[in-house]
Amino acid sequence: MLFETLKSVGDLYTVPMEMAQKRLDSLTKPLGSLGRLEDIIKRLAGITGEVFPCVDKKAVVIMCSDNGVVEEGVSSCPKDVTSKVTRNFFRGITGINAFAKHTGSDIVVVDIGVDDDIDCEGLVKRKIRKGTWNIAKGPAMTREEAIKAIEVGISTVEELSKKGINLLGTGEMGIGNTTTSSAVSTILTNSKAEDMVGRGAGLSDEALWKKISIVKKAIEVNRPDASDPIDVLSKVGGFDIAGLAGCFIGAAAYRIPILIDGFISAAAALAAVRIEPKVINFIFPSHGSAEPGSKKVLEVLGLEPMLNLKMRVGEGTGAALAFHVFDCALSVYKNMGTFEDAYIEQYRPQG
Amino acid sequence: MLFETLKSVGDLYTVPMEMAQKRLDSLTKPLGSLGRLEDIIKRLAGITGEVFPCVDKKAVVIMCSDNGVVEEGVSSCPKDVTSKVTRNFFRGITGINAFAKHTGSDIVVVDIGVDDDIDCEGLVKRKIRKGTWNIAKGPAMTREEAIKAIEVGISTVEELSKKGINLLGTGEMGIGNTTTSSAVSTILTNSKAEDMVGRGAGLSDEALWKKISIVKKAIEVNRPDASDPIDVLSKVGGFDIAGLAGCFIGAAAYRIPILIDGFISAAAALAAVRIEPKVINFIFPSHGSAEPGSKKVLEVLGLEPMLNLKMRVGEGTGAALAFHVFDCALSVYKNMGTFEDAYIEQYRPQG
Repeated sequence: MLFETLKSVGDLYTVPMEMAQKRLDSLTKPLGSLGRLEDIIKRLAGITGEVFPCVDKKAVVIMCSDNGVVEEGVSSCPKDVTSKVTRNFFRGITGINAFAKHTGSDIVVVDIGVDDDIDCEGLVKRKIRKGTWNIAKGPAMTREEAIKAIEVGISTVEELSKKGINLLGTGEMGIGNTTTSSAVSTILTNSKAEDMVGRGAGLSDEALWKKISIVKKAIEVNRPDASDPIDVLSKVGGFDIAGLAGCFIGAAAYRIPILIDGFISAAAALAAVRIEPKVINFIFPSHGSAEPGSKKVLEVLGLEPMLNLKMRVGEGTGAALAFHVFDCALSVYKNMGTFEDAYIEQYRPQG
Repeated sequence: MLFETLKSVGDLYTVPMEMAQKRLDSLTKPLGSLGRLEDIIKRLAGITGEVFPCVDKKAVVIMCSDNGVVEEGVSSCPKDVTSKVTRNFFRGITGINAFAKHTGSDIVVVDIGVDDDIDCEGLVKRKIRKGTWNIAKGPAMTREEAIKAIEVGISTVEELSKKGINLLGTGEMGIGNTTTSSAVSTILTNSKAEDMVGRGAGLSDEALWKKISIVKKAIEVNRPDASDPIDVLSKVGGFDIAGLAGCFIGAAAYRIPILIDGFISAAAALAAVRIEPKVINFIFPSHGSAEPGSKKVLEVLGLEPMLNLKMRVGEGTGAALAFHVFDCALSVYKNMGTFEDAYIEQYRPQG
């Protein structure tokens, strides 16, 4: 199913993009002066095929899972926070509940590997296993499990596509997942672990060094093949990262624009793009996370954050906040007057 | 009146700030993980004195005026665009009309020096003179006119304060005003003109060099006194910049949070802060403008853009877009659950 989906990832539609550019150039403003809002609009036109694209049905997909590596003491939080926060998404009290409410978006919570039996109404139950194995000792999961996790992401997006969702954000909940994301990113960006690992929810200096050593150990023990992103995901990733990689691939296949949130979803986006390079055309950045690895991963993807707020809540909160930028971009694009409306002939470079 | 207003600028209220910090730390997220949204909330508490501040009545003040230096050929736009766009604000077709509509904010258009007779309903008519003199040949205005222009800004904010406006953005319309802003910023940041001058609405390489030489000439001819910001504004500034400096001072005096937009309002903010350093506590950044000088001015003010969209529309559009960030920050702050709600005791650094 993964390989069928990859075959269906297409290119951007160039004609609607050119027509959108024409509309943008007709608006009563200096040429190109809406900056990256213009890039957003053109790309949305290229993805949807509509000169006036619509992103009125938004959802943030939150992949929740546990990570065996937590037993190494890499996180400042106890492991059961994964399960507790996953339940709290349904009690409406988490960060993403508040961000999603404010930006008018749904949240879609997927249990892809929480180490607990959760049965909340609305939970998408696609548990691969109750948490990965400890990457410091061996692979996180089998290759088959990695593919299955990616397919969970694809099928989640397929369902949302059927429901008419036309803008996606990516979120996650999984204690220990900045450690796995650091390991995946170290390999996929060919970097040093020291430059990828950050303080997560709030580590001390000593704990930070320990986390770095665990990431190095995970890479040494598993020797993931950088040229095989599925190998990297299965050996040093997590079910959440693999599931999110599947969301990016699914979004490309079903032609839905999709936003990266923080470090974990950036690592997943990079894995997805390494699996199928055309996926990049459907991916947008949102905020610059406080995690140091996030910056490098976005750089390698050729993306630059739109928001600089030093947030590190996770859960998809940065992606949800960036939905406002998309809404505003489209509203301006539709509602601004043209030069004709404005009785101005020259508001353009004359040299 | 200016000097009376300056005396009334107070400090931030520390008790509500501490209480806001306590509330932030009680929310079910890693400590400090809302990043700069937490800074926004604390500062709003310190400005308003409310632990749960409210910014439901927003307005963007747009100072419109002409600049005599345009006769040197520093702009890619003909001069009458100032007057045309000023009228278009009332026809609802400009960039800021669309941005303001989308962010639920009013726009307040002030004719502080347009070289035309404009009589639109709702226009705040406070014309100092029909455009400044050419700064390449002598001072833009007299010292008395500069003070009068600053007072226009103050009294505009005073009026808005009476109407219950509780969040302000700053905008401008004035062909030639990136040239005057470059001159003001070169002096106030002690920089080279080359590092301050940008392409404005879209200059060619050759025209860019000409603009740099005009800024240098304006500084040489006028020799503004860097330690006397009113001298700088009067000699190489514009009515719009001086009016906006007055808005920042007024916002501080009437304790209304106020957002910088692009380069012109950043230069005005710096002038305001040099006139009265306490004003900085009431000022927030919004986006990083595409104009190179903007970055340096924000740096000197100790501010960092929240949005990175390479916009250069002016008119207050970047400030209006950042209103969303404020709305979202406050909504999350009010609606997120606490650790008590969440049944989580430890979601904090343990080392």
